This record gives sequence, C-alpha cells and structure tokens, in this order.
Amino acid sequence: MSRILVLHGPNLNLLGDREPQLYGDTSLEEIDHMLEEEAASLGVKLRIEQSNHEGELIDVIHRERTWAKAIIINPAGYTHTSVALADALRAVRLPVIEVHLSNIHAREPFRDQSVTASACVGQISGFRAYSYILALYAAKQIIEQGPTP
Amino acid sequence: MSRILVLHGPNLNLLGDREPQLYGDTSLEEIDHMLEEEAASLGVKLRIEQSNHEGELIDVIHRERTWAKAIIINPAGYTHTSVALADALRAVRLPVIEVHLSNIHAREPFRDQSVTASACVGQISGFRAYSYILALYAAKQIIEQGPTP
Amino acid sequence: MSRILVLHGPNLNLLGDREPQLYGDTSLEEIDHMLEEEAASLGVKLRIEQSNHEGELIDVIHRERTWAKAIIINPAGYTHTSVALADALRAVRLPVIEVHLSNIHAREPFRDQSVTASACVGQISGFRAYSYILALYAAKQIIEQGPTP
Amino acid sequence: MSRILVLHGPNLNLLGDREPQLYGDTSLEEIDHMLEEEAASLGVKLRIEQSNHEGELIDVIHRERTWAKAIIINPAGYTHTSVALADALRAVRLPVIEVHLSNIHAREPFRDQSVTASACVGQISGFRAYSYILALYAAKQIIEQGPTP
Amino acid sequence: MSRILVLHGPNLNLLGDREPQLYGDTSLEEIDHMLEEEAASLGVKLRIEQSNHEGELIDVIHRERTWAKAIIINPAGYTHTSVALADALRAVRLPVIEVHLSNIHAREPFRDQSVTASACVGQISGFRAYSYILALYAAKQIIEQGPTP
Amino acid sequence: MSRILVLHGPNLNLLGDREPQLYGDTSLEEIDHMLEEEAASLGVKLRIEQSNHEGELIDVIHRERTWAKAIIINPAGYTHTSVALADALRAVRLPVIEVHLSNIHAREPFRDQSVTASACVGQISGFRAYSYILALYAAKQIIEQGPTP
Amino acid sequence: MSRILVLHGPNLNLLGDREPQLYGDTSLEEIDHMLEEEAASLGVKLRIEQSNHEGELIDVIHRERTWAKAIIINPAGYTHTSVALADALRAVRLPVIEVHLSNIHAREPFRDQSVTASACVGQISGFRAYSYILALYAAKQIIEQGPTP
Amino acid sequence: MSRILVLHGPNLNLLGDREPQLYGDTSLEEIDHMLEEEAASLGVKLRIEQSNHEGELIDVIHRERTWAKAIIINPAGYTHTSVALADALRAVRLPVIEVHLSNIHAREPFRDQSVTASACVGQISGFRAYSYILALYAAKQIIEQGPTP
Amino acid sequence: MSRILVLHGPNLNLLGDREPQLYGDTSLEEIDHMLEEEAASLGVKLRIEQSNHEGELIDVIHRERTWAKAIIINPAGYTHTSVALADALRAVRLPVIEVHLSNIHAREPFRDQSVTASACVGQISGFRAYSYILALYAAKQIIEQGPTP
Amino acid sequence: MSRILVLHGPNLNLLGDREPQLYGDTSLEEIDHMLEEEAASLGVKLRIEQSNHEGELIDVIHRERTWAKAIIINPAGYTHTSVALADALRAVRLPVIEVHLSNIHAREPFRDQSVTASACVGQISGFRAYSYILALYAAKQIIEQGPTP
Amino acid sequence: MSRILVLHGPNLNLLGDREPQLYGDTSLEEIDHMLEEEAASLGVKLRIEQSNHEGELIDVIHRERTWAKAIIINPAGYTHTSVALADALRAVRLPVIEVHLSNIHAREPFRDQSVTASACVGQISGFRAYSYILALYAAKQIIEQGPTP
Amino acid sequence: MSRILVLHGPNLNLLGDREPQLYGDTSLEEIDHMLEEEAASLGVKLRIEQSNHEGELIDVIHRERTWAKAIIINPAGYTHTSVALADALRAVRLPVIEVHLSNIHAREPFRDQSVTASACVGQISGFRAYSYILALYAAKQIIEQGPTP
Repeated sequence: MSRILVLHGPNLNLLGDREPQLYGDTSLEEIDHMLEEEAASLGVKLRIEQSNHEGELIDVIHRERTWAKAIIINPAGYTHTSVALADALRAVRLPVIEVHLSNIHAREPFRDQSVTASACVGQISGFRAYSYILALYAAKQIIEQGPTP
Repeated sequence: MSRILVLHGPNLNLLGDREPQLYGDTSLEEIDHMLEEEAASLGVKLRIEQSNHEGELIDVIHRERTWAKAIIINPAGYTHTSVALADALRAVRLPVIEVHLSNIHAREPFRDQSVTASACVGQISGFRAYSYILALYAAKQIIEQGPTP
Repeated sequence: MSRILVLHGPNLNLLGDREPQLYGDTSLEEIDHMLEEEAASLGVKLRIEQSNHEGELIDVIHRERTWAKAIIINPAGYTHTSVALADALRAVRLPVIEVHLSNIHAREPFRDQSVTASACVGQISGFRAYSYILALYAAKQIIEQGPTP
Repeated sequence: MSRILVLHGPNLNLLGDREPQLYGDTSLEEIDHMLEEEAASLGVKLRIEQSNHEGELIDVIHRERTWAKAIIINPAGYTHTSVALADALRAVRLPVIEVHLSNIHAREPFRDQSVTASACVGQISGFRAYSYILALYAAKQIIEQGPTP
Repeated sequence: MSRILVLHGPNLNLLGDREPQLYGDTSLEEIDHMLEEEAASLGVKLRIEQSNHEGELIDVIHRERTWAKAIIINPAGYTHTSVALADALRAVRLPVIEVHLSNIHAREPFRDQSVTASACVGQISGFRAYSYILALYAAKQIIEQGPTP
Repeated sequence: MSRILVLHGPNLNLLGDREPQLYGDTSLEEIDHMLEEEAASLGVKLRIEQSNHEGELIDVIHRERTWAKAIIINPAGYTHTSVALADALRAVRLPVIEVHLSNIHAREPFRDQSVTASACVGQISGFRAYSYILALYAAKQIIEQGPTP
Repeated sequence: MSRILVLHGPNLNLLGDREPQLYGDTSLEEIDHMLEEEAASLGVKLRIEQSNHEGELIDVIHRERTWAKAIIINPAGYTHTSVALADALRAVRLPVIEVHLSNIHAREPFRDQSVTASACVGQISGFRAYSYILALYAAKQIIEQGPTP
Repeated sequence: MSRILVLHGPNLNLLGDREPQLYGDTSLEEIDHMLEEEAASLGVKLRIEQSNHEGELIDVIHRERTWAKAIIINPAGYTHTSVALADALRAVRLPVIEVHLSNIHAREPFRDQSVTASACVGQISGFRAYSYILALYAAKQIIEQGPTP
Repeated sequence: MSRILVLHGPNLNLLGDREPQLYGDTSLEEIDHMLEEEAASLGVKLRIEQSNHEGELIDVIHRERTWAKAIIINPAGYTHTSVALADALRAVRLPVIEVHLSNIHAREPFRDQSVTASACVGQISGFRAYSYILALYAAKQIIEQGPTP
Repeated sequence: MSRILVLHGPNLNLLGDREPQLYGDTSLEEIDHMLEEEAASLGVKLRIEQSNHEGELIDVIHRERTWAKAIIINPAGYTHTSVALADALRAVRLPVIEVHLSNIHAREPFRDQSVTASACVGQISGFRAYSYILALYAAKQIIEQGPTP
Repeated sequence: MSRILVLHGPNLNLLGDREPQLYGDTSLEEIDHMLEEEAASLGVKLRIEQSNHEGELIDVIHRERTWAKAIIINPAGYTHTSVALADALRAVRLPVIEVHLSNIHAREPFRDQSVTASACVGQISGFRAYSYILALYAAKQIIEQGPTP
Repeated sequence: MSRILVLHGPNLNLLGDREPQLYGDTSLEEIDHMLEEEAASLGVKLRIEQSNHEGELIDVIHRERTWAKAIIINPAGYTHTSVALADALRAVRLPVIEVHLSNIHAREPFRDQSVTASACVGQISGFRAYSYILALYAAKQIIEQGPTP
C-alpha cells in the first residue's frame, strides 16, 4: 500500500489567518482534512506533520524514511535557505515532491531561488490548497509505477 | 464547457527520440493521445498545437484567446529567453499554467530562470508526461471554480 | 520624397485590448490611421507592418532597405533580447528611431536594458500613441536635413 | 495658457564648444532661441534656466512648481547619479520629460542607467537640439489634453 | 493597556561576556531589568523571551500574537538569513520594531542585508542597550496613537 | 549644556506636500517646532538647517563642528550617493545619528544602500516625524553619558 | 558518401553589403559557390540553407537529421541567445561545427558568450569565408574517421 | 588534562547510509568509537554530541564553553548558511577546528563558501573519517602548546 | 609662461585636522604655501581654489579654462561619484592630473573606482602632500614639451 | 617561404598520458611529427617549442618575432589568466591563431573565458590533434594571401 | 616504502621573516627539518622543493610523478590564480593534499577562492607549521590504505 | 646613500617597438639611461632589472631586499593577476611605488583593477617615461625623510 509523508514547514499552522490574498483562507486543518479524504478514496496512507523548526523537520524525515514511500513537502520559508533540509531530503533517497501554495516564481526575487528543489523529483506551485492534491496524484503515480513515463 | 489550449514549444515534436534519459521515451503523439483521453473523461475540450517558431506560438495565443478558457503551455527553450511570449500570455488575460517534463530547477543554472513563469498562475515541473495531466486537473479546477481556494 | 518604414513588434496587434493602464486604449489600427494622416500632412510616405515573428521583422527590414530612408520601430518584447534584430538594423545602415508606448525606464528592471537601442539614432518612450508622432517628426527632420543640428 | 519650465543641467553652458562630434555645434543660446521661437508659435510660455549645481536645480524645481504646468529637463551628468534630483521631480507632481542631446543608450554603459528617468512621463534622446523641440510638442500635448491617448 | 512582546535572538544570552567592544558589557539580565523598569514607569506590560532556536522564536511569535499589541525583536544572527522568521512576523500582522545593539550598517557587509527588516515598521540600531529603550518608546507610541504622524 | 546640530537634506522643505502616503503630512516647520519644544523640556540647545545643496550641507557640518556636541542628520536623497557628505561626517569626529522618516529598508532596493550610515553611531528609520524625537533622546544620552552602555 | 548540412543564420544573406570591415566583402552566394567547389573536389555532398527565422532553422535541423551526417552552422545573432536552437542541435545527435566569420572572442563582451557552442564538437572563428572551408575539412574528417584522434 | 567538545551537525546521524560515494560507509557510531580510542591513547577527554537543530548546537556550545578547552565541529549543512552558529563559536572564545568529511572545495560552488570558517582557527576537509583524527591531533597541540608555532 | 589651476575638492579645507593617520597632519594652507614656493622656483603661475560644492568646482573649471594651461585636481569624495565633474574636465580640453593624498587603491573597494580618472592624462596617489608637488612637475613638463615622450 | 612558430603551453608535454578522454591519446611528439610532415608537404617551415613557464613563452615570442611570419599557440592553462602573455602576442604584431584540443566552450565555465583570444586573428577548438592541422592551413593562407577574403 | 613530494610555493623561502603575525616565526628550514624528523619516525621518504616560479613548480610535479606516491603542496600566492598548476596536479593522477599555514577562509575574500583545491583530495589550513605535519599523517594514511574509510 | 631597486615587468623590453600610440616610442634602454642620469644628479644609486618571468621578479625582490631602501616597479601585465608578486612586495617590508606608462584607469576595465597596488605606498600612472622620473623623486623623498608629510 502507498504510504506518503506530508510535511508542512514554518508558519503554515497559521494558514487561513495569514495574508489570505496570497495564501487563500483555507486553514491547515481543512487542507489536512481534504488530503485525508482524497487519500482514503485513492487507497493511500498518510502521515502529516507541521513544524516551525528546521531541525524538527529533518528529524521527522529521518524517522519516517523507512515507513514512507514518498514525501510531499512544503518547505515554506526554509525553501530558499536550508541546505541542511535539502541534504536530509537527498540522504533518505525517497521521491520528494515540493509544493507551494502561491506561485513562487511570480513573487519577490528571493523566493524564486529554491535550495530544496534540486533534491526533488518535481515541483508544483501556485494552486493554493489544490497544489497538495495534485502532489498526491503525482506521488501515488510514482510509487505505483516508478518514474512517470 | 471547459475549453483549454495546449501549447508545445520548440523541439517537443522530437519527443521520445531526443535525450530520453531527460525527457522520457513517450512521443508527443502519445502525450497528446493521453491528454485527449483524460480530457474526454473529464468533459473538457482541447486544442493542441506545437511549433518551433516563437512568433507562431504568439499568433496561436492571440488567435485562440476568445475560444480558450485557460492555457497549458510548455515553452521549452523559450522559457528562459522570450519576453515576447511572456507579454503575449499576459496580454490575453487567461489563466496560464506552465508545464515542464523535467525538473528545470535541478538542471543547468540557466534553465532555472523562467521569463514566462511570472505570467502564469502556477508551474508544474518534473513529472514528465504526467506533468500535463496534472496541469489539466488544475486548469479544469480554475475554470470551473475560479481561483483555487 | 521622404519614405519611412514603420515596424510594430510582437503583441502590438492586441493594442487597446491589452493592459490598457500601461499601453493606453487606442488600437493599433487607430495609431496607424493617426500616423497616415500626420504623414500625409507632412508629405511623407509610410509603409507599416506588424509581426509577432522575430525572423519576419528581420526579413521586412532587409526587403525595404532600399525603398526606405528611415525606420521607426517599436521592437516590444524583442527590445530586450534580440541580438539578431539589432544586427539587422545595423546591417541596413539607415537611421532608426526606437519607439515605446510606455516609459520603459520606469518599469521592471529587465525592461530597462535595450539590446536594440545601440543600433538606433535615438529613442522616444513614454508618450503612448503620441511617441510615434514625435518619431515621425524626428525621422522627417533627419531625412531632409541630415543629422539634426 | 501652457507654462513650461526648461532646465539645462551641468556643463550645458559650454554647448557648441564641447565635444561637438557628440553634442553638435549649436550653442545653448541658439537652442534657447529656437525653443523661444517655437514656443511663441505654439502659444506656450517658457522659463529657462541652466545650472551646474545639483542643489540649484532642485531649488528651481521647488520654486517654479506652482507656476509651471510641466517640466522639460536635461539632467546631463546628474542623470546617472542624483537620487536627490529624482526625488525633487517626484515631489512636485508635475509631468516631467527627460531630454538628451545624444543617444545615451548607445554610449558608455554607465550612461545607460538613468536615475531620474523613473520620475518622468517619458524620455527623448538622440536628436541633438531637436530633442528639445520634440519635448516641447509632447509637453504641450500633455498639458492641454491630459495623458496622451 | 499596552502589551509588548520582547524577543532576543541567538547568542544574546551570552551578552556582557561576548565581544564587549562590539556589544557593550551589560548582561541580558540587566537589559531586561532596565526594560521592565522603564515599562513600569510607562504603564506598559512586557513579556520577554530569549531563544537560540529559530523555530522556537517563530513558535513564541505565533503563541503571543493575540496577547501582544506590538513586537520588539533583536533577531541577531537570524537577521540576515531567516526568511521563515520574517514570514512569521508578517503573518501575525502586528507592528514590529527591529532592534540591534551595534550599528549593523557599519560592520561586515553580510550584516548590512536584513531579511527581517522588510517585515517591520522600523529599525533602530547602534545604541547598544539603549536601542531597546528607544524601541519601547516607539512601540508605545504606535500602539496608543496608531502609525506615527 | 547639550548642543545638537539638526540637518535636513534635499527636498525635505517640501514635507507635508510631497507624497504624504510615504512621508506623512506633517510639514518641516511642524517637525522643527516639535523638536524645539522637546529640546526645551530636555534642556538641550538646537541649531537646525535645511539645504538642497550637497556642498552647503558639508559647509554647515564644518562650520558647526566646534559648537555642536552631536549631529542628527536626515541626508534624504544624498544618503545613497554622497561619499563627500560621509567624509565630512567622519572628518568632524562627532557622534552622528542618521534619521529617516520612512523605513528605507522596506522600499526600493537602491534606498537600502546607505553610503552615509557607516559614518554614524546609529540609524533610526520608519517612525516618520517621531524618528527625530527618538534621535534627540539618543543624542542627549550619548552626549551626557558617553557611548550608551 | 559524406553528406553535410550547412546552415547560415540571420542577416548572413546581406553578406558583402553589411559592415565589410568586420565580415569581409564576399557575398553569401560566393561563399556557397566556394563551398560547393571545395565539396566537389573532396567528394562531399552539401545542402545549404539560410534563414532569418529561429524556428525555421530548427525546422531544417529536424527535417535533415536523417539525411545529414554532420552540420556546419553559423548561428550569427542567435549564437548568444537561443536556447531553443541549442536544444535542437543537441536533440539530433549529429556532430556539429560552429563557424564564425569574425573572431567573436575579440569583439563586444556579449558576443563572447555562446549558448550554442556547448552543443557542438568544436568551434572555428575569425578566418572570414575561410572559416567555412576549414569546417568542411573538419566535418569530413569526423564523418570518415570518427572523432579526431 | 585536555578536554575537547566534538560536535556533529545535521544529517550526520545517517552516516554510512547516506550517499556513501561522497561520505564513506563508516557510520557515526564507528567514527565516535575511533575518536574515543584515539583520545584515550592521547590522554584526551571528549564530549560528543550530534544534533539536527541549529539552536541545539548553539545551546551545547554555550553550555560546554567552560568545560571544553577546544571545539571540533562538522557544521555540515549549516556551514554555508548559519550566521547564528558562527556568532556562537566566536562568542565562546575557544579555539575551534572545522572538519569536513569530503573536500568541500571540490564540490558544488555553494559548498565552497563557509560562513563558519571565519570563526575557526583552521579547517581540515577531504579525508573522510580521518579528518576527525587529524583535528584531534591539532586540537591537542593547540591546547597544550598554545597557537602552533 | 606656464599657468596651472589647482583644485581642492570637498572636506580638504579640514586637512590636518581630519583623520591624520590617513591624510597626514599638514593643513591645506601649508600645502598651498609649499605649492606656491615650488611654483615660484619653477617659474610657474598658480590659481588655487577649494570648494565643498560640486557645482562650484564645475563653475571654476569653466571660468578658468582659457587662463589655465593645465589642471591639477584632487576631487576627493567626488572622485567616485561625479559624472558631472568628469564631463566638465573633458569639456575644457586641457591636460588634467588627478591627485590623491592617500593610495586610493589600497583602501575601501568603493574608493578604487574613479569616475574622474578617465578624463585625465594621469594619476598620482599615495604620497600625501608630496603628491601635489609631483603633479606640479608633471604638469610643467606636459605644458612645456607636449605629451611626455 | 612561410615560417611559422608553434607554441605549446603548460602540461602539454604530458599529452597522451593525461586525461585521454578529454585530450586524446596522441602524444605531443606525435602531434609535432604530424605537423612537420604536413608542413613539409605544404612547403612551410616550422619552429616548435613547449614550456610550462609563462615567462619562457613570452621570451620565445619576443625572440622569434622577426623570423616568424605567424604564430600558432595553444596557451593551455594560461589561456584564462595571462594578461602578460596576451600583451606579448599583441606586441609582436604577427597574425596569431589560438588552438585548443578540446572544445573549451563546452567545459567548466572558467575555461570559456579566454584572455589571450582578443590578441588573435581567430580561434580553433575541439578537434584534438587535428585542430593544429587546421591552424596550419589557416596560417599559410593568411601569410600568403593576407587576411582571408 | 611511502615516498612523498613536498612543494613550497612562492615567497615561502622568506618564512619567519615575513609578516610573522600571520605566518608564524618558524623559518622554512625549520619546517623542513620538522618534516624530515617526523617522516623518519614514520618510515616515510621525502623530497622537498621550493620555488617562486609557477613553471618550475609544474616542471617538478612532472619530473617526480613516477617517484612520488603523493604530493603535499602549499601553492601560496598561486592558489588563487594558477589554472596551469591545477592542470598539472590533475595530470599526474596522484593524491594531492593542499596545505596553508594560515586559515585562508578567514582572510581577504580573494584568498577564499582556491583554483587548485579542486585538484586535491583534501585541504588543511590554519595550523601554521603543524599543518604540514597533519598533511604528512594524511598522506601516509592514503598511500598505505588507499582512500581513507 | 639612497639605494633604489627599479623593476620592469613583462614585455617592457620591447618598449618603443610595441604599440607606440599607447606606450610612447622611447625604448627601455633610453628610459634606463634617463633614470641613471637623473639618479646621478640626485645622488641616488640604482639597480635596474627587467624580466618576463613572474618568478624571476619575485626572486630579484627577495635578493635585493637588504640592499635596497625602496622599490620602483612597473608590474605591467602582472599588475592585474599576480597575488604572488603582491605577496613578495608585502613580504620585504620596503616602501614600493607602482609605476605605469599609460593611465591604466582610462583603458580597458580589466586594467583598472590592480592586485599589486595594495602592497604599495603610492601609484603614478599616465606620464609615459616621465612616470619613472616622478617615482624617483618620490622614492628619494620617502627614504630620506620618512613617509611624506
């Protein structure tokens, strides 16, 4: 059975409350609920965690590296600076999908540079909560059929 | 009914034949077939075009701007250089989704800079042929429900 | 008699419809009409062309290089990237006047760098449709009296 | 009646004497005379000043900001360095037209960067003395009809 | 009543002991004491925390965002690198004042670039312990009277 | 008794009239009045000057260097370009406090680079008129007690 | 038998007429004639095309990719900007030789950066028309004997 | 007696398992064992800690700053980004030796820039597990004889 | 007879008082006295002026351009920023010698870039007051014998 | 009779032994032999030297500057750094042809910048030993017929 | 038996005499003596050379490449500029250890960029004379046991 | 008695013959003769050497460091690249004067950056052969009177 680790990075716990014109007004609980529902209908198992701590996110990646078959991560503010997080993703040798709520390529220049992206299979950005659902489809596809054709 | 313009940029007509370790061995015809099938099952109408000419791509965007409700585009080699193409995408005021077969953020540095991305709603890269399918879901969602929640 | 080639670059065919807060709501037909009227009253002959194709613009410059005594060009999105277009302008050895509807020096940084400007006698930007009229005066002046005093 | 402030920046008092291959051999007095004549025939009133002092130019802009309806300025050497002058132009909230005798975009790279241009409606460069006449037409147009169509 | 969160970033717990020629020889306890005294005389309530953990600082900002009316933060070493911390400050939509003991604009170049400053109302640097007192005045002013005149 | 020189740079004489959304609608006269009142209550003597001339500001700094015990300066547009002004501030060896009405670190990139800041004890920016009052407190503190603890 | 595709990029149709001090006064017809003669004496077959259109050049490369055993290309103005052309050259997996009439390494800096060169076996520049003849020798050598020893 | 703090940064707990072609297949436990053995034979006392948390590493440095006479640290992914960690190392005023398993100067460019190195006495990189042993020799030498001759 | 204009730029009137470790403790009066004495013994006539005003320095250069046969200038803080001053020096077409008291090539990086140097025959820096004397020898040589052999 | 100096730069004496996948397995002796044979059949005289010393290469260029009619040089590692070598090539005013075994434009970025190329007539790179033969043809052509047509 | 080539680059012959606060006051003779003694006790044979000539260093590397089993090199001033030296080290295919007396990562920025490091197994810097001893241990380890575990 | 070492860098032996419009037509022998004559009349002893070898120049600086009281050096092409030469000049702790025939600040940009200048007391450039004579005056002044007043 497909088992996927979903990781929410810093400040995402405030979702819905924080700059809704950029990030939408859906809360993180609602996103997690949507993900659980969609996962159930796809026959996929999820473990979901959120942390504001860079080290905590690395710990979780290490801890779940044998349980999980793929990782969906929204590194948020760590996207642009964390070499350590990127090293962790590379170290566990699982397919990783980077997700962003907003289109990071159409915002401030410093948000266009992703340190973590080079450790990922692919990146989906700009569809708000729906970015996660698309990532779920992609992760399932990769786990079940190997690298997409 | 949802009507979507799908645009393939330069060299994509060689797909399957060209550097398969990077782009997969699916041909463009096969991708178009997959798209048509998925579109049919979703109740979505497609118009698909490929061109190696920058000006031709701009012409098609202009010509189809009243028919289409959204655009899915893989600008390929023009991603990194074409201000004129980005201007065309902005000019028609439709939701645009940028698609890439490979993860452009994990390749040569010059491929990490996208001139066209800032004219788009979002970007999906790295899932080979499946990137287009994900873009189809996203486009349908935006057309039918407005900006994703 | 003064003969002037007027060239409109990519996306200008959408004028009036596209981002009117930046480019004004006059259509390209209206600008061409204004130019024809002003030219008639000045005793100047015009040939006017628009193309979204970089190569097409180069072809026209080559083809009209013996008929025309001067060129007025709005290279639009090619302003910032086309070495080939700048080479064409240099090759035909005619006085060239670069025109922009908006003040390109007060917009995004990448619009401030003009590859084509160094092949021109001068540049007029920021007066919307009226930029072309001013260029017409300047071109006539140069043709009839040589380099302005 | 249209009232326009014309400002000549540093070293322009030497015009005609200084590097004529770049700036032409017309003296500043002759340019001012041409401007006065053209203005008279257009029914426009001018005030013209030249100064080599950055602070003096700012003082004049402040002092004439209620009398003038528009400003034509050739900031010369201050074009590329004076944030203070650009702030002054922005502060008086009048339409400003930047003028250059030579095509600053086809000379040394440091002359291609204009600090003052972003405070202006538009820019005209490369037509020597005639650049001022074109600016006069543009300024009259803007004063009488608001932003050009 | 005015309620202000005061946050000390990494290494500030060593204050007084660490490079006193740069940071002064006042300890963090003494600064906190000075702040408490000044706050009492101003009728302002403080909550003060120090942490070397980036994630911990973000957690505190989240936790206190309804209690506090303003934030005074010395991000120390995270000033120049933490996009996540800047996002947290932006997310809680409170007026934030950035404080530095030394004049960061007169030290090593990398200390001149502040990632967090753009999320703040203002910045005070260079007055050692007194920078905090000045920030207290400013915060009170903003809370009680809205944005300073 | 504490004697402080207050210097207002270019365009500040237009304050209240110029872009009030950025700089507030308090006039320079009102700021000077506030400063004089606060100074009187603190037992501090002020000399206040405004000039649009870079050289004039340097002259005043030289002239008052024996009378003044500290300098408060808002270099405005010269902040980002004047090496000569920074040299003057360094030359007189007085404690200097740089003041800005708006938060220069949260505006256009070129405003983030301060040439003068490295000649100062500290910098206060973003509190509009109140920035000057805070600077007054800081200057008094430094004069009376030497470098803040 | 050796079959070689010779491609002339934009503006080369004007050869002999355009800036002869840089490019020599031999016309493109004369170069093609020289090439045909030399090819005949070497027992090599040529197909020669010129186009000002980026897309057209890509189309020809695709179309001739099974007929040709090697490509000689002078990308002219597209040398420095066309990622799409470089992708096309890489895609067809033939040995490609880049040719320039002038020594591009001794001209304007932007001409020193070749986007297409990394898709080529080698580069020959600076010998005017004779650059093509040398490329012919090299292409024949590679086709008949594999990579040069 | 010589007392040395050995710090392993993020992801090093996965050693042996993670990209062995870069980092060797020795596990962190084996390295610690080697270090303990070598330390015993040299008459040196060690405290060894590993953490994925930037703040945790800073806490340990603070806590052990009176016990330890020297620090050996492999900052791993924090090497290139953590100003806070470098500030901590500077603050405790102990001799610090930076260690890397791989030769960071022969890998990706961003790994060549070390933020922490300027807070260290020296750096040893490229000898895999043996880098730590060499650092042990160097630390002992510095503690017992002061700065090496 | 040789007639030389000597120009001292901003802050040089404070010489002897200002940062003597960098600029020496000779006052400007003493330097002028030394120059007058040396000039008398060489049979050379001097006019010497100092100003803190960029515009004033330009005015003097214009005013003395027929009297003087050569210019010796220490542009001080304007060296690195004043395009207007460099334009003035170029405009008067006299041999100009740039002088600096300190070795500007061995100080802060921004002092290494001279805007004015390209308008000069040569540059002498680093010999404190004696730099002027050497410039006097060089100016006399150039006036009397034309460009040095 | 044509007389040509052939210069091999540093490390080329190891050819055949050193990284054969990049430089081929032909030794320098074999290349020299091939060159001598080809030269004999063309009626050209050669002098060939190799040195690892930058100064030695300059000395040889000086010494042979009257004997030789042209120079063929492979500057190897000095290509990218030696201003002195480039000055020497410019000083002797002979036609110089730069040769590289590998395609330097398709390797590490620092190898793409040639300091010496701007002192040369042309450059040939990427054909291994055959690059020298092509250079021989080009040199003979230039000596006998002047600059190629 | 282990045979190691030790190479000292330019200016190291002045050691002890030159800037002792940076490089220590041990002379090169003393370092060589220390190395010989340590080598004897380890059963290792050394050949030691010093040269100020870049070409000489390359010659020695070539000449000793069959005798030596490893190289220890302090390239001194050539570290940051010599592509030719780096090419030589790569060409002989021996394990190379780069050594620096001072911590080059904590000095001027240009000393932080090593051209030669990418041709080495590892780098040791900052332990003055003791850096060489540590390199000796590392070289012996590599020769006897292959790449360190 | 004053003893001065005069060093001529690479290619200066060709002086008079090489690009006379830049460097004058005086030969190096004539310059040396002028220097000897001037030195005799000043009572100064000279040793003069020229070399094209970077290492040779370093050797001479080392060898003459006890005999000489000052060094005059024209590093020519090594000015812009040689860290090793700059290290040698710093190592011998003598006053060094850098000399250039042409005004290096008014030529190609790469000639404006001097690596060696930061090791010198001062720099004199642009007076052709007379630059050396001025350096002789300066060197004598420094030797006899210590640092110039």
